[in-house]
Amino acid sequence: MNMYPSTWLWEFPTPNEAIGRAVDQIILKKRTRFQELVLADTPQYGRMLVLDGLCQSSTSDEFLYHEPLVQLPMIIHGAPRSVLILGGGEGATAREALRWRTVEKVVMVDIDGEVVDACKKYMPELHQGAFDDPRTELIIDDALRYVRRAKTKFDVIVSDLTDPSEGGPASKLYGASFYRLVKRVLAPDGVFVTHTGLVAPTVTEGMRKVWAGLGSVFKYRLPYTSYVPSFLCMMGFVMASERNITAVPSADAMDKIIKTNINGSLRMLDGAVAHALLTVPCYLRDILHASSKHK
Amino acid sequence: MNMYPSTWLWEFPTPNEAIGRAVDQIILKKRTRFQELVLADTPQYGRMLVLDGLCQSSTSDEFLYHEPLVQLPMIIHGAPRSVLILGGGEGATAREALRWRTVEKVVMVDIDGEVVDACKKYMPELHQGAFDDPRTELIIDDALRYVRRAKTKFDVIVSDLTDPSEGGPASKLYGASFYRLVKRVLAPDGVFVTHTGLVAPTVTEGMRKVWAGLGSVFKYRLPYTSYVPSFLCMMGFVMASERNITAVPSADAMDKIIKTNINGSLRMLDGAVAHALLTVPCYLRDILHASSKHK
Amino acid sequence: MNMYPSTWLWEFPTPNEAIGRAVDQIILKKRTRFQELVLADTPQYGRMLVLDGLCQSSTSDEFLYHEPLVQLPMIIHGAPRSVLILGGGEGATAREALRWRTVEKVVMVDIDGEVVDACKKYMPELHQGAFDDPRTELIIDDALRYVRRAKTKFDVIVSDLTDPSEGGPASKLYGASFYRLVKRVLAPDGVFVTHTGLVAPTVTEGMRKVWAGLGSVFKYRLPYTSYVPSFLCMMGFVMASERNITAVPSADAMDKIIKTNINGSLRMLDGAVAHALLTVPCYLRDILHASSKHK
Amino acid sequence: MNMYPSTWLWEFPTPNEAIGRAVDQIILKKRTRFQELVLADTPQYGRMLVLDGLCQSSTSDEFLYHEPLVQLPMIIHGAPRSVLILGGGEGATAREALRWRTVEKVVMVDIDGEVVDACKKYMPELHQGAFDDPRTELIIDDALRYVRRAKTKFDVIVSDLTDPSEGGPASKLYGASFYRLVKRVLAPDGVFVTHTGLVAPTVTEGMRKVWAGLGSVFKYRLPYTSYVPSFLCMMGFVMASERNITAVPSADAMDKIIKTNINGSLRMLDGAVAHALLTVPCYLRDILHASSKHK
Repeated sequence: MNMYPSTWLWEFPTPNEAIGRAVDQIILKKRTRFQELVLADTPQYGRMLVLDGLCQSSTSDEFLYHEPLVQLPMIIHGAPRSVLILGGGEGATAREALRWRTVEKVVMVDIDGEVVDACKKYMPELHQGAFDDPRTELIIDDALRYVRRAKTKFDVIVSDLTDPSEGGPASKLYGASFYRLVKRVLAPDGVFVTHTGLVAPTVTEGMRKVWAGLGSVFKYRLPYTSYVPSFLCMMGFVMASERNITAVPSADAMDKIIKTNINGSLRMLDGAVAHALLTVPCYLRDILHASSKHK
Repeated sequence: MNMYPSTWLWEFPTPNEAIGRAVDQIILKKRTRFQELVLADTPQYGRMLVLDGLCQSSTSDEFLYHEPLVQLPMIIHGAPRSVLILGGGEGATAREALRWRTVEKVVMVDIDGEVVDACKKYMPELHQGAFDDPRTELIIDDALRYVRRAKTKFDVIVSDLTDPSEGGPASKLYGASFYRLVKRVLAPDGVFVTHTGLVAPTVTEGMRKVWAGLGSVFKYRLPYTSYVPSFLCMMGFVMASERNITAVPSADAMDKIIKTNINGSLRMLDGAVAHALLTVPCYLRDILHASSKHK
Repeated sequence: MNMYPSTWLWEFPTPNEAIGRAVDQIILKKRTRFQELVLADTPQYGRMLVLDGLCQSSTSDEFLYHEPLVQLPMIIHGAPRSVLILGGGEGATAREALRWRTVEKVVMVDIDGEVVDACKKYMPELHQGAFDDPRTELIIDDALRYVRRAKTKFDVIVSDLTDPSEGGPASKLYGASFYRLVKRVLAPDGVFVTHTGLVAPTVTEGMRKVWAGLGSVFKYRLPYTSYVPSFLCMMGFVMASERNITAVPSADAMDKIIKTNINGSLRMLDGAVAHALLTVPCYLRDILHASSKHK
Repeated sequence: MNMYPSTWLWEFPTPNEAIGRAVDQIILKKRTRFQELVLADTPQYGRMLVLDGLCQSSTSDEFLYHEPLVQLPMIIHGAPRSVLILGGGEGATAREALRWRTVEKVVMVDIDGEVVDACKKYMPELHQGAFDDPRTELIIDDALRYVRRAKTKFDVIVSDLTDPSEGGPASKLYGASFYRLVKRVLAPDGVFVTHTGLVAPTVTEGMRKVWAGLGSVFKYRLPYTSYVPSFLCMMGFVMASERNITAVPSADAMDKIIKTNINGSLRMLDGAVAHALLTVPCYLRDILHASSKHK
């Protein structure tokens, strides 16, 4: 008799690590035009979206990823009216943006309509109707192509793409040349944010690359992190802007912004927690500081 | 991007070995009254039945298990009319018995009706209609209770139970006291057969226990083995009888018995292959020989 | 050809999760009187100590565990002279305590002398000579027995024990009855700290138990967390005291305490990061808050 | 506490299967000029040689591989005096050849001197002094280059190479063009043998390729199999010759050949077991038969 469950999801987040997550049921498994898509129910993390073997979101703790990803730049901005989401197929990124009473328009550009359809159908806790909100415009297209052609400018742009693995659909959407295109569609006082993959003392490359890429395009940058249990790691994020986002509002000021603008209550964030996330460990701050100097 | 599949079945056949099998889809996963039941489609082995984490049958190679299990004792018997199957929930053991033109009655006693129902519905390649054959009588009951109460005698009795793991449903169905009950319902010239779990130079305990248990109850015994790829191991079997089954018919004689009695063609066995299976490696023959002497 | 490394460490942090870490070399593997001890070199995390299959420390990121564990309560205390460490076999906890110029005495009580000896010999980066410091007294004994009999009182007591798994050596060292014994040997204005195992939205039980246990013994408690990459999780901690430790010094005040008292530079912590660690995510704060009310 | 061992060897024999073997100690782990070499002690299988992640030999059951590989073609030959071994770094293949009193010369050509040195030092149970036998000539060279240049002819040639994986050192040593070179150095009545990797109903490609390749070069072929527990699979083999090796001596005749010629006693094989190995399951015989017709 097995002393452990018999059905598992396996992920290799780095070539020297493997993560196994027990599975109760595979809801959907298919190869889309762009990637392998798995939706599975897990006893530990709830329903989970897995693309090309890598966990993207799970119902039990996606708020630890989506709240920092979306709410932090929006709070820093203060009164965003238009939001562009690159990727974000689950609809949870749009959901967070749509909670803002100031928001009039959310454009979401995801390359993989099959992922969006699967999440619409099987992960209602994630989108919570975001796709039906009249302010949402869903565009199934390559984010690169979209930002090249877009005519309007956005107050906040959120890059919620898969990791830039070799050959994966998002491999061209990290780096200075892409960030320059993004800047073109960002309002002058707008804020751009992207995640950087996992961050650890031995895994700082992703964060450093994004940090350097954004540094060559934008005047101001702000790093932060959030631990996401179902990813079994700390996610890194960097915000960038032409306006001085490093002058962060106080925790109290943030609490007021949240109360005034955001519908419903946040599960992870308030002003104090936002400040905590923006305070990265010394080793990481030093690495980013050093890399800024060497430029 | 994962270089290997993302969804897996995991089995620990011994505490020091683990086997992973990629999974395309979980067809059914439930906890029955007696055990955990998983039916899954695998790219390597086809559809697979897994009970309490241990692979029981897969469509791609179950014939390498079921043909030796059933056909060898029936050929040795020569003209079986009644067959009792203990366990055998998939219906494949019954299927093999029903191929005999001489067979008038197949009684199959499985403790877990939920396993039988799942196999009926989802594994038609295994039973191939065996449950609908008018000669088949399916009894959902404890095999132990059945053999204690049974009034009729059978020409061939096939024990196709799960491994005797601690606390598992089959734990009392291996050993001399159970074999004495079995003997009560076996015709005087009948043949009993049971598998013994996996056999290897470092894993001979299962085979030795069954060998010793049967040796204390029956006059004659005959060991054999068959390699089953989806089990990733060699299965051991022992036949036992009061008649001299060690005087094995020649390969040619077996071929005639097969041709005369069995409908359809066997995929693994003919007379020569039957003789090959009955010729166990010297190391195993010596171990069994030694244990016989010591009695 | 394998596309991944061939030698691995495997850990099951919960029954529904498995973590694999590639291994370059096993430095030592033995069963001590109390537990299984493995020291291994990993390409991802450096040298790693594993007890009963669970990662305890790795050279690449142990500071993300040991700095918060030790420095936070000592900074909160302000001027500790005597420190008692329960467990802490690697010597890294003692190392952190000994950095304080105010510290005159560090007593370390670990049940497993074989673990201490192995770490002394094979993990010099962790203890950095702590065992040779004249202020250090190493006692190989059961922490429970030690706190029962101890006559002196300590300014800071650090519980750096393995998780309270069934039958493990530390299973009796969590809970109110043990905390009452600890209080006996804590100076009236002393600070006690313990880790609580991993914390996540679906794994709050360990934190809640420690929180409740300490709440029934001490007047004041302070929860915090730190992400440790080689554990693949966020560790929880709780400080407890009879003095009002919830009135936390400002980040600037902490920086001054650090500068005045601690030799060498901290790799993870300064005043701001300390405040960030003490600011737990809202969901966790709410759970602890709710559990406090229900008492 | 882990319910399973914490240190493991992991092998992916096919892209859809993984095999884990618990490890007590890693004896040696290095990257040679040609491949990754791991020598490890396992509780299940004894000491194991692993090249590029794939198990090559383990002390507990290597005889189930090396006896069939070497003794079957030598018995079929009847009185071999000279033997050429391609690969065979462990020395166990040479050991088996040297047991023949008729043998005057064993030439062993292995590309990887580091593997040979490691096996000499750490696996004495495998070579049992074969490298010190005056009849043994060890040549560290590419087998391809050796057979191209060799001037002498051999009675038996044994190909004991690693699997023909992409880019691995043995990738050019399977197929008709290599077999033609082999034929040049085989005595007119000599016998060539090679393993074919694992064989199963869903994995017949390796066997079919070797079968076809040998069929285009040699007049006679003879397939056989042997189950090797530490490989968790059935290994396939094919013998080939210009003389009619399909006219196999009887089991009794083989027993006489063994008794007359071979020092010491075989652990797996006698005449009867040899015949059993040469009797492949019907499904495999039919596949090979069909492929022969289609030529």
